[in-house]
Amino acid sequence: MRIAVLGVGLIGGSVGLAAGRRLGAEVVGFDPDTDHLRQGLELGALGRGEDSVAAAVDGAEVVFCAAPVAALPPLVAEAVDATGPDAVVTDVGSTKRRLLAGLPEAAAERFIGGHPLAGAETSGVAHAREDLFEGARWYLTPTERSGGVQYDLLQRTVADLGARPQAIDAESHDRLMAAVSHLPHVIANVLVQQAAIALAEESERLPEVGPSFRDTTRVAGANPAIWEDIYAANADAVAEAIGDVQRRLGEAAELIRGGKKGDIGEWHRAAGDDRRRLLEAGMEGGALLELRVAVENRPGTVAEIALALGRERVNIEDMALYPAADMRTGAITLWVAGEAEAERAAEIVRGLGHGVSIVGGDE
Amino acid sequence: MRIAVLGVGLIGGSVGLAAGRRLGAEVVGFDPDTDHLRQGLELGALGRGEDSVAAAVDGAEVVFCAAPVAALPPLVAEAVDATGPDAVVTDVGSTKRRLLAGLPEAAAERFIGGHPLAGAETSGVAHAREDLFEGARWYLTPTERSGGVQYDLLQRTVADLGARPQAIDAESHDRLMAAVSHLPHVIANVLVQQAAIALAEESERLPEVGPSFRDTTRVAGANPAIWEDIYAANADAVAEAIGDVQRRLGEAAELIRGGKKGDIGEWHRAAGDDRRRLLEAGMEGGALLELRVAVENRPGTVAEIALALGRERVNIEDMALYPAADMRTGAITLWVAGEAEAERAAEIVRGLGHGVSIVGGDE
Repeated sequence: MRIAVLGVGLIGGSVGLAAGRRLGAEVVGFDPDTDHLRQGLELGALGRGEDSVAAAVDGAEVVFCAAPVAALPPLVAEAVDATGPDAVVTDVGSTKRRLLAGLPEAAAERFIGGHPLAGAETSGVAHAREDLFEGARWYLTPTERSGGVQYDLLQRTVADLGARPQAIDAESHDRLMAAVSHLPHVIANVLVQQAAIALAEESERLPEVGPSFRDTTRVAGANPAIWEDIYAANADAVAEAIGDVQRRLGEAAELIRGGKKGDIGEWHRAAGDDRRRLLEAGMEGGALLELRVAVENRPGTVAEIALALGRERVNIEDMALYPAADMRTGAITLWVAGEAEAERAAEIVRGLGHGVSIVGGDE
Repeated sequence: MRIAVLGVGLIGGSVGLAAGRRLGAEVVGFDPDTDHLRQGLELGALGRGEDSVAAAVDGAEVVFCAAPVAALPPLVAEAVDATGPDAVVTDVGSTKRRLLAGLPEAAAERFIGGHPLAGAETSGVAHAREDLFEGARWYLTPTERSGGVQYDLLQRTVADLGARPQAIDAESHDRLMAAVSHLPHVIANVLVQQAAIALAEESERLPEVGPSFRDTTRVAGANPAIWEDIYAANADAVAEAIGDVQRRLGEAAELIRGGKKGDIGEWHRAAGDDRRRLLEAGMEGGALLELRVAVENRPGTVAEIALALGRERVNIEDMALYPAADMRTGAITLWVAGEAEAERAAEIVRGLGHGVSIVGGDE
């Protein structure tokens, strides 16, 4: 089997590694930046590098276009042109409608959009890993004009890379991503903006911000080069999601202004339940429970806890540090899947002399 | 010196421990729940427990009212009534205006509001620690009618507990908290609500949510009993902050709908700069830098990294795990203060065989 990878970064490189090692495929790569190509070869992500798209895709059965979103339309068109009648061409971009709309007629049968939910937090082929897609959702966006042979081939290939392919129409995909990925980034940006202005008004010196602010704005300003593309490519869905949030915020403001504690508490509680349900979706091992641990935030404390849990094979699904202002004391929240597992984890952490309380689950 | 603590939970207990051990004060406590009182005595947070407010504050120079926000007005009034003319009465609640407005005339001189930014993530006297307030900002909200003797005494006492007192008027305090603490909670709730509805529309089964969603909504539904009080007590400031966010979201939606990548990128980048500036405020050791580490998320990986950094005395200011869907692979982002320290940390993590990139600082 021959696979072509056009664009050798984190995703392209990881596709190359997985395809080479798991499928035993011959992987041929192209990247306009010859340094990336060289690195990909050195890391074993590519078996061979070529200096043109046409040369790289020649004889390939599956072509992965792993370039930035803005560069995809001409790249996909060129790849479709240069491949045989049974080959499938796909991409790994975060939005799907605009790309589909911008493709030439000729690409309709053999191009099928794709989007692996993996690897967003780092970039560069140096971070590529064979197991990047292991267990990850990989959305595929076939249309009624997609070839059956092509879809079948792509679906199997993606599964063989370790991912869990799922078909979704491009419209739903983009709306979904707007709600669970793009919107949180917009909100984080806006919150940070607002705080910067509000605080500048209060005093010359910015006061400390709390842990809730840190969490809520963690993704503010992340990877501008990638995000300007994503926002632009999904503009209407993102704007619509923003509109929904504006309306919901208006309702929340009204509720809070009304001051009825019972109703406010109800609303607040329901959000906690919703979040737990969302995070548990598709997660094995049962409900996600929070362990709140009061600690000294000296070097080594996190390690000590994580190590003790690791030794007993407890997996930490998620973690947040809440250092106090002096950065020496604070709290750690750990998320562990399943009640029994959470109890076991609490026991272990208590054994280290820390106070622990468990939140969530049936509570 | 005699200190009274009314309400023996995390904050009250920690005040007791710090006052007893650091100031050598005699600490007398009252709590309507006798279990809390007993625990406080066992843990050494109290030297003595009393069964009424009047008995507990008798002869006390400083009285800390550490009860839930809703219970404060009558408690403060009673404490002011039962103490001598030089004593100061304070509280530790998250909002200040409503409490001040609800107090009797007689409390104006000797009650001075307070709010330590510490200990929000856990509760219960079992988590109390002598060093909870070490280095933490402790807002004090004196008014023009506050007694000078009382302010001086309170200010010194709070500093002696290890905190960094700062005077701020109640109005500014509540606006500030609305922006950096209450608003993020509202937003997290709204985002979660919206995602739950949007996703329920898409399919029966909820799809995976990404790391950005997880971070942005981490505080959704936290501690409902506490938060219904906070929202209600700071209703107008929170509603106003929500209104500001609505307007800013409208601007963001317009910008994104316009689709000008350069402008969108500029806006996104500015948010990243703002966030860094906010987080660095008051932090020693220099600019906060992000280390992005690609890892296997097996039990022990976090520990291994944290331990290696701890061994070399690198302190992790903040940390976020971004597990992939299979929960076995993922990325860790670590925040480290200061460029030299970040480089050193990156070197250590690379030595463990992980790919690391540094983001932030001058970038």
